[in-house]
Amino acid sequence: MMSTDKQLRRPIWLSEDGLCVEVIDQRLLPHDMTILDLRSVDDTVMAIREMVVRGAPLIGVTAAYGMYLAAVDSKETGGDPEYWQTCAARLMAARPTAVNLAWAVERMAAEISAAHGYAARVAAAKATAAAIAEEEVENCRRIGENGLPLIEAIRRTKKSGPVNILTHCNAGWLACVEYGTATAPIYIARARGLDIHVWVDETRPLNQGARLTAWELAQAQVPHTLITDNAGGHLMQRGKVDIVIVGTDRTSAGGDVANKIGTYLKALAARDNNIPFYVALPSSTFDWNTRDGLREIPIEERGADEVRFIRGHDGKSATRVRICPQGCPAANPAFDVTPARLVTGLITERGVCGASADEIKKLFPEKF
Amino acid sequence: MMSTDKQLRRPIWLSEDGLCVEVIDQRLLPHDMTILDLRSVDDTVMAIREMVVRGAPLIGVTAAYGMYLAAVDSKETGGDPEYWQTCAARLMAARPTAVNLAWAVERMAAEISAAHGYAARVAAAKATAAAIAEEEVENCRRIGENGLPLIEAIRRTKKSGPVNILTHCNAGWLACVEYGTATAPIYIARARGLDIHVWVDETRPLNQGARLTAWELAQAQVPHTLITDNAGGHLMQRGKVDIVIVGTDRTSAGGDVANKIGTYLKALAARDNNIPFYVALPSSTFDWNTRDGLREIPIEERGADEVRFIRGHDGKSATRVRICPQGCPAANPAFDVTPARLVTGLITERGVCGASADEIKKLFPEKF
Repeated sequence: MMSTDKQLRRPIWLSEDGLCVEVIDQRLLPHDMTILDLRSVDDTVMAIREMVVRGAPLIGVTAAYGMYLAAVDSKETGGDPEYWQTCAARLMAARPTAVNLAWAVERMAAEISAAHGYAARVAAAKATAAAIAEEEVENCRRIGENGLPLIEAIRRTKKSGPVNILTHCNAGWLACVEYGTATAPIYIARARGLDIHVWVDETRPLNQGARLTAWELAQAQVPHTLITDNAGGHLMQRGKVDIVIVGTDRTSAGGDVANKIGTYLKALAARDNNIPFYVALPSSTFDWNTRDGLREIPIEERGADEVRFIRGHDGKSATRVRICPQGCPAANPAFDVTPARLVTGLITERGVCGASADEIKKLFPEKF
Repeated sequence: MMSTDKQLRRPIWLSEDGLCVEVIDQRLLPHDMTILDLRSVDDTVMAIREMVVRGAPLIGVTAAYGMYLAAVDSKETGGDPEYWQTCAARLMAARPTAVNLAWAVERMAAEISAAHGYAARVAAAKATAAAIAEEEVENCRRIGENGLPLIEAIRRTKKSGPVNILTHCNAGWLACVEYGTATAPIYIARARGLDIHVWVDETRPLNQGARLTAWELAQAQVPHTLITDNAGGHLMQRGKVDIVIVGTDRTSAGGDVANKIGTYLKALAARDNNIPFYVALPSSTFDWNTRDGLREIPIEERGADEVRFIRGHDGKSATRVRICPQGCPAANPAFDVTPARLVTGLITERGVCGASADEIKKLFPEKF
């Protein structure tokens, strides 16, 4: 299904008949806007693994709807614990780094197993998946409200020019349900009329910055400039970055931040230039069981062709080109871990805190 | 002129009749091997500005041959100082950051002005350009010999696996005349049978790593792996990088290093992980008049389309694709400055020294 004229606000929704989960195919943006129908756990696993959907909160919501599709399909198998274990395990294995995946699947499994009979299971799954989606929206809205004062404070002290915010990858509404995480304070600042400007890291290899964040910001009329991933340090040296805000795929209980590969380099440059480096996340992205993020968070190694080839538009249609000699060996670690010592603060739905177990505990005491 | 069957060893040479400078068109590698004929100062300025040739030493050699072409063309104008000033000024303005450009043009101008009569001017220009080229070859060979012990020392202390060297951009023979600067110790280590492996940063926006360094290393059968510019910090955190060696376009007399955008980020990561960070350069790349590289070295801002579009091969032919929304604003600073405090040492033709005025002075006392 093609839809280029429809203005979308969410990357995922349930079809009218409730039998199918519809998602924007984010692999094709910004060149094509295509909606994919997910009709089974298989479809959902594929969509997560192949990055039709991506971004920690959206991966969680999609996996939740995957469990809902498992419930719809459970008329004959629903009494068999092995069926549910298999569905849950397959969804959780689709991508290793984003912790929201396991969090959402476990919550869905608990609600489904508490319901008795097919109709009750389906109803419980539908309601829980919808609740997870709505909670993510509300969490992102609060992240925006909680992050806004950081931008306002810079606005007050800066003599001239916009507040320059640098972001890496896409932690926008395409990565969530609405608002986004890193973009939530940006959208709210824009809505309130603050003079802001966003440096958008292109974010190789899959260019989520160039493809998705630049597209989102243009749609929302937020002034922005695309840069290569190499440029941020130089811009910071020259005083052209006031604050860095990024998202995260998994944050340890001690404040170590796993995020898209290259985030660590920006955190180092921010520290070297005394620029605040903030990470925006809903509490679903905390991994409460992990203390040492560098040693414990699994880093996904993706296929080498994502490095060797780049997708783009050649003037006629979207296509991909090889950027290196044929058969060139390539490696593709998808995430890195920024140690808590480099993180100025975490922007959560409950407020802003320092990146340490003690500070996080003040906001989320029930988790410790 | 197309030549894909000829194995080339140098990126620049004089045609047999001596009237034309032939260069590999590096914009098209590795997809096409095309030789361009430069027949005038105009052609030479274009070749430098459009990055047909690039890399500080090669820019210097090409500019020297540009002054030779000016001499060939000076039968009627050679007595007019304004002619020489205009030729020199146009060549020097072709790219602002590489200091070898001014160095080579000034040396050529001095030799040409000391010669009397057309034939003597042409002969002096030809001999001086050839001397500059041969000196760069010899300097690069010595850089290789002087850098080799750094790799050998790691080899001796490392228990298993190859010595892992990370490099950014292309500081290979394509950037010089032979050997390269950063690659010279690599090629010599390989020739002597050391077990080494090179991490090749792709080096957006123009991908000189993916296109040129990967191609050079494959030709020389040096084991290597292409990575995105984002990946180096993560690899360093995981102990997968033993040493960083990069080139430079201009290095201050105090050891501040201007090099391809993104170099600074790798220097920060190397420091954070206690990994030695070396810069290889012939003395022609020192700017003896500059002390504070961050404040004084001009940083070239190139066109936004180099960020918005990527050149590659679509399976049928080389083409370019747009990687962002149409009309997306983009910025393209081409270099950054790595402060001397982050540089472990400089590998020069006279030996290895620390990145400070005192240490550099010990190797090049006549320059201070």
